[in-house]
Amino acid sequence: MAVDQVLADGLGGILSGDEWTVEREELEAYGHDETEDLSFLPEVVVRPKDPGAVPAILELAHRLKVPVTPRGGGTGLSGGALPVRGGIVLSLDRCDRILEIDTGNMVAVVEPGVITQVLQEEVERVGLYYPPDPASRGSCTIGGNLAENAGGPHAVKYGVTSDYVMGLEVVLANGKVLHCGGARRKDVAGYDLAKLFVGSEGTLGIITRATLRLVPQPEERAVLLASFSSLRSGLDGVLAVFKGLTPSACELLERDAVEAAARHLGRPVPVPGAEALIVMEVDGFTRDDVERQMVTAGERLEAAGAVDVRVAMTRKEREELWALRAATGEAVKAISTYKEEDCSVPRSRIGELVMGVKEIARRAGIRTICYGHAGDGNIHVNILRMDADEATWRDRLPAVIEEIFSLTVKLGGSITGEHGIGWTQRRYLPLQLGPVEMETLKAIKDALDPDAILNPGKIFPG
Amino acid sequence: MAVDQVLADGLGGILSGDEWTVEREELEAYGHDETEDLSFLPEVVVRPKDPGAVPAILELAHRLKVPVTPRGGGTGLSGGALPVRGGIVLSLDRCDRILEIDTGNMVAVVEPGVITQVLQEEVERVGLYYPPDPASRGSCTIGGNLAENAGGPHAVKYGVTSDYVMGLEVVLANGKVLHCGGARRKDVAGYDLAKLFVGSEGTLGIITRATLRLVPQPEERAVLLASFSSLRSGLDGVLAVFKGLTPSACELLERDAVEAAARHLGRPVPVPGAEALIVMEVDGFTRDDVERQMVTAGERLEAAGAVDVRVAMTRKEREELWALRAATGEAVKAISTYKEEDCSVPRSRIGELVMGVKEIARRAGIRTICYGHAGDGNIHVNILRMDADEATWRDRLPAVIEEIFSLTVKLGGSITGEHGIGWTQRRYLPLQLGPVEMETLKAIKDALDPDAILNPGKIFPG
Repeated sequence: MAVDQVLADGLGGILSGDEWTVEREELEAYGHDETEDLSFLPEVVVRPKDPGAVPAILELAHRLKVPVTPRGGGTGLSGGALPVRGGIVLSLDRCDRILEIDTGNMVAVVEPGVITQVLQEEVERVGLYYPPDPASRGSCTIGGNLAENAGGPHAVKYGVTSDYVMGLEVVLANGKVLHCGGARRKDVAGYDLAKLFVGSEGTLGIITRATLRLVPQPEERAVLLASFSSLRSGLDGVLAVFKGLTPSACELLERDAVEAAARHLGRPVPVPGAEALIVMEVDGFTRDDVERQMVTAGERLEAAGAVDVRVAMTRKEREELWALRAATGEAVKAISTYKEEDCSVPRSRIGELVMGVKEIARRAGIRTICYGHAGDGNIHVNILRMDADEATWRDRLPAVIEEIFSLTVKLGGSITGEHGIGWTQRRYLPLQLGPVEMETLKAIKDALDPDAILNPGKIFPG
Repeated sequence: MAVDQVLADGLGGILSGDEWTVEREELEAYGHDETEDLSFLPEVVVRPKDPGAVPAILELAHRLKVPVTPRGGGTGLSGGALPVRGGIVLSLDRCDRILEIDTGNMVAVVEPGVITQVLQEEVERVGLYYPPDPASRGSCTIGGNLAENAGGPHAVKYGVTSDYVMGLEVVLANGKVLHCGGARRKDVAGYDLAKLFVGSEGTLGIITRATLRLVPQPEERAVLLASFSSLRSGLDGVLAVFKGLTPSACELLERDAVEAAARHLGRPVPVPGAEALIVMEVDGFTRDDVERQMVTAGERLEAAGAVDVRVAMTRKEREELWALRAATGEAVKAISTYKEEDCSVPRSRIGELVMGVKEIARRAGIRTICYGHAGDGNIHVNILRMDADEATWRDRLPAVIEEIFSLTVKLGGSITGEHGIGWTQRRYLPLQLGPVEMETLKAIKDALDPDAILNPGKIFPG
């Protein structure tokens, strides 16, 4: 695919030679993310070393009406970083400086390419904590987390990415630079633009700097593993925990997920024969407090029918349990071609959701594996192709997904809790949002990106 | 002022006779809020008993291009509820039903007219807590809190109103009804519209229902009173507290504020001669935890120069201290005609802010009284007219305010932390927001309310 000469000349005037490329191999490398097996070829890949170049890049794209698809770590699961309309992939991965860690105000100021785990480790050194922790935290970036409003296991106590955003620098579709918020904890001057850009999946602006809220690092943690003889009783177990108690994580894995993860890691299954596991964490500032929470949680889980409750008190034991949980996604995907859904319902409805998914799958004759952030009501439903032929898979899948999403919405839920709508889920968005909601989203999109150059093809169906 | 016959006929077709009025006395009563001595006469006051009437009211207003000024408890401090362009005052105070308190999902579903304190007391009965607590919580409404994104003393640990909004029903300028979010804790399907409407001061839509997040009610609390021999050392005391410790409130009052409040309540000054007081609260789920926090806080405050630290352990002692703090606003206002500013800076800059305000005031020969949510960096600066004549007050005031706000912005702050821009602060907004930010706010306003009927005259200057 030939890059337009005007675009090439323009980029050449803004960037040094190693900051952009039209090499086929590079275009292919930046043509996919972690979403299924999807791939689209951009015309050019731009990787500025400094976010200061972004306004000129956007001005150029705006003048030439060239699509711009922003990209962080490329770990997205809804195709947010796929250049579905070609044009420019704008990867911010090199803009990876932590500009400031301000312990007095408990904020960090970062460029968008900072790896989430790197930020977490840096702030931990000064006794602070940045909680959002998607499973990909070792390779995803803060910019991508902001674009998709990433969550993770600790969201159940600490909230999601948007809860940690205090300020943003955003380059708008026309190349102008917008600043909102900052290190101040309270600000009601004008609309909350920062919260609008977070989760907008790169369709409203390119985030080039973020001021993030940090909290004190809890000094004590403990992790508990509870096993159940049925998936149903595991789901009940999740609900039993929350009453005056707020665990810092509460993950559920069904038997297939546990077995896949253990196999993937080459480790034995933690509790052979268990149909469901809950991995629960509590944290605090004193040993006494954490032990009190563990005792309470353990009692409640046993009362709810757990056949076995074990406590992992050492850091090593805790890390092994978290490694098992973290490996689940990749392990399940290694079984077969798959489609991952990310249903989110009010916590009290997870039983109806998961048992409903199982019933829908049974009727359709397909296999699903469920696991995820059950304490938040956010369950990842992996639909596996297994040995279905291509035609059957393609024909049957959309109806199954529609049925799962219709159930989710009926339960007061959302079709995506943390992965975003992106490219793969846009056709299903009207199952959740009606015409008024879709018109309102579109009105905002048109107001901020009238030429639709920012991540076109995403969020909006058709 | 004669109400247009077409408007009258339209309202008569939607509402019963006791739901709207053009009586002069009523128009006057709804023509002001708690903002200074400002008053504007609407053409009609509408007070529906059911939020279900709001879409038809908005459709009518939209068709006739009549301004609609929404109103909650009328306790605002920036003139958000003032009908500055006449038209309809739409008071939601009668739509005051708590529709649901869902203990399993820890959410409350409410109509906008519910009094904040009423909701707090209702959820406390089932062991839950709704933290946002503006000083006016006994008479302000959830709808007004949402419109202005209200804070309060407990924001320092628990955050502000927007942190508790999970879902909204909003009637748009054209009368269409929009739903966003719900009892699900995670939802990234489309832009975060709920967070856009919160804090938009009624300029983007009328909130008719809200789903609010609740948290477990802390079982233990303690309040501490620390006194300082200088304002400067009090400010240092605030900063000393926060390191691995998150108090549930951390308020600062300068001497004049304390004396005014004590006089207002007819009580003795708590620590005679103190130049500054810190009222600090910690909370938790065990007595041990709260005591540990109190000891730590007390040691830090003493190390920072507190001359006296007292602990109020009983509920009665705590309530007396909070009553003193809560009375401050009214007490200060009783001294003289005043203008209240609501500066918010990064916490570490409160010393520079307050001492800077004092210096600006000294040079201008005016009196200020400072107090407020110092732990959040949010200081209420009351500028008192005292015996200045009208011309001097009018001429001198804007320059003083500009100087205070310029300092605030220079310190990385916002000109309003919780009161909003509304009517009285709109001329100062460009001190904080540049042309790109103002254009972006305007683009969103135009997209959602193209005829500018929703709370016209607010937020945007000129």
